[in-house]
Amino acid sequence: MAVYTDVPDDELAAFLRDYDLGEVVSCKGIAEGVENSNFLLRTEAGTFILTLYEKRVEPRDLPFFIALMEHLAGAGIACPTPVKARDGQALRRLCGRPAAIVGFLEGLWPRRIQPFHCAGVGNALARLHLAGAGFAMTRMNSLSLEGWKHLENVTGDRADQVQAGLAAEIRNELDRLAHEWPRDLPTGVIHADLFPDNVFFRGEKVSGLIDFYFACTDLLAYDLAICLNAWCFESDGSFNVTKAKLLIAAYRAVRPLQEEELQALPVLARGSALRFLLTRLYDWLNHPPGALVQRKDPLEYWRKLRFHRSVANVAAYGIES
Amino acid sequence: MAVYTDVPDDELAAFLRDYDLGEVVSCKGIAEGVENSNFLLRTEAGTFILTLYEKRVEPRDLPFFIALMEHLAGAGIACPTPVKARDGQALRRLCGRPAAIVGFLEGLWPRRIQPFHCAGVGNALARLHLAGAGFAMTRMNSLSLEGWKHLENVTGDRADQVQAGLAAEIRNELDRLAHEWPRDLPTGVIHADLFPDNVFFRGEKVSGLIDFYFACTDLLAYDLAICLNAWCFESDGSFNVTKAKLLIAAYRAVRPLQEEELQALPVLARGSALRFLLTRLYDWLNHPPGALVQRKDPLEYWRKLRFHRSVANVAAYGIES
Repeated sequence: MAVYTDVPDDELAAFLRDYDLGEVVSCKGIAEGVENSNFLLRTEAGTFILTLYEKRVEPRDLPFFIALMEHLAGAGIACPTPVKARDGQALRRLCGRPAAIVGFLEGLWPRRIQPFHCAGVGNALARLHLAGAGFAMTRMNSLSLEGWKHLENVTGDRADQVQAGLAAEIRNELDRLAHEWPRDLPTGVIHADLFPDNVFFRGEKVSGLIDFYFACTDLLAYDLAICLNAWCFESDGSFNVTKAKLLIAAYRAVRPLQEEELQALPVLARGSALRFLLTRLYDWLNHPPGALVQRKDPLEYWRKLRFHRSVANVAAYGIES
Repeated sequence: MAVYTDVPDDELAAFLRDYDLGEVVSCKGIAEGVENSNFLLRTEAGTFILTLYEKRVEPRDLPFFIALMEHLAGAGIACPTPVKARDGQALRRLCGRPAAIVGFLEGLWPRRIQPFHCAGVGNALARLHLAGAGFAMTRMNSLSLEGWKHLENVTGDRADQVQAGLAAEIRNELDRLAHEWPRDLPTGVIHADLFPDNVFFRGEKVSGLIDFYFACTDLLAYDLAICLNAWCFESDGSFNVTKAKLLIAAYRAVRPLQEEELQALPVLARGSALRFLLTRLYDWLNHPPGALVQRKDPLEYWRKLRFHRSVANVAAYGIES
C-alpha cells in the first residue's frame, strides 16, 4: 500500500481545468496498489480514480493499457473507463508523471475466498477474453519464458538465501518449461494479474475488474492458470479442488476450452507459479530498506509450483474431461 | 500515511448490519493520518469515514473525542459527525479495535499555504472555541508542561544525536517555560493539532476541520499559538508576518482576545514549538525500522522556537495592540 506522489491542491485544480468534470470536491490517496499512486477523486461530476504512473510502469505501454480499458468498457466489461480531457486524450501529465482519470467501480475485493468468488472470477475472466477478441493492439508478455530467464539471471544463486537449493530448482524448472511450454493454444488479451485484490464483488456478483497494467497478448488458458494459483489455494498451502472446479466450470460455461488447453493446464500453472515466484524473489532480494510496500513470500509460489509438478493430469483440478 | 488494519469484507458487512446505512458499496483505505486506520466508506446511504483506533489513541479518551465531535457538529462547526448505530452508540468495535463511522467532509487540505488560508483557519479556530464553550466534558492536555517534562526525560541526552547541544537547550527552555507559563488566561476546548492537513478548503473557504484526537481543555490562546507555528512559517524557515497578522485578525474578529492573551502569545508560541519539537524528537529517536510513517524533522520546530525567543513583543506577529 502506498502513495508515492503527493498531489498539491492547486496543481490538481489546474489539472482538472482541462476536463469537463467541474471543480474538485475531495481527493484522497488510496492505500492500495503497489505500482502506482491512486487517489479517490470526487468532482462536481461524480466519483473517479486518479492514477499517477510511477516508475515501474513503462510509459510506452500506457497507450496499450488505456486503449484496452476503453475497449473492454465499451464491450460491457466492468472495468475502469478512462475519462478523456477536452482535447480527447485520456493519458495526460500531473506532477511530472503520466496520469489518467478513470471511472470509479463499486464493490469490495474479497479477503476470505469463498467458492462463489471462484465461480464469479471464472465467469468474469472468460467474458474478458471474449471481449478482448476485437481489440486490435498487441503487447508481448514481458513476464513469460524470456522474462523468467532474465529474472533467473539477475537473482541467480542469491535465491539460496531464501531457501537452500532454490536456485538450482528454479534453473531446472525453467529448462523443463522451455521444452514443455505449449505454442499452439488460442491467444488473445489476458489480464495476467487477476488476484483477489483486483476483483471487486457486491454480494456474490463481480462488480469490477481493475489493474490492467500487466495485461498483454498471450495464451488465454495461461490467464486461467494464474487464477488457479491466485484463488484456489488455502492459506495453509492446500489446494481446494472444489474452488478450482467451480472456477474452471464457470469459465467453460462462457468460453469453452479446447482439449489441448485443458491438458496444458498443469504446465501453464507451473509457469504461472514460477512467474510469481521469480518476481517475488526479485523483490525480496532487492527490497529497499524503509520501503512502503510489504514483501510477499516467494516460497508460497514455490510450494504451489511443487503441487502442480505432482499433478498426474487435469482430474486433479476437478475436471472431468 | 498508513493503514494499519485490513478490514475483511465479510467483517465489514457484519459490522454495518448494526447501522441504518444500507449495504457497503465500497471501502478504500486512505493513505492519510498517522495515528489511526481510516477508510473512505460508501454505503447505500452515502459517503462516510470509518476509523479504527490504533494503539496510539487511549481508549479511555475516545468517549471525549466522540462526544466533542457530536457537540461541535451540533453547534454548526463543519467537523466529522459521528454516526450512531441502532443501539445509540457511535463508538463500537471492528477487527478487535475501537471503531467509529463519521460523516464525510468535502474539501482539500492546502499543500501550499496562501494568506487567505491563514485568514480562514483563524476564523474557523475562533468559531471552534466559541462552539466549545457549551461542552460539558473536560480532558487534561497530556502534552503540556508535565508531558513535555516526561518527553524530555525519556529522550534525554539522545537529543544530541540530532544536534549537538540540543539536550541542554531543551532543558533550559523547559525551565524557563515552567516559570513563565501563563495560568490565568481563558480556557476551554482546544483542537491542539490544527495543522494544514487537518483543515479542508473548498476554494478560499474552510469546508471542514478534522482529527480531534489531541483535543483537550487548555488555554484558548495556546491553540492560536499552535496555528502560528503550523501556518505562518515558510518552508525556508522564515516567519511570514502577513500570514500571522491575517490569522490573528480573523480570529479576533470572531472571538476578541484579552490584552493578557495577546501579550502571552510569544511564550505560548515557544511552548507550542517545544511540544512539537519534543514529540518529533521522540518519534525520530524511536522510529522503528521499516515503519510506514515518514519521520518529521524535529529541528524545524527548534528553529521556530528560536524565532519566538527572539521576539521583543507581539508587534512581531503583526499585531498593533
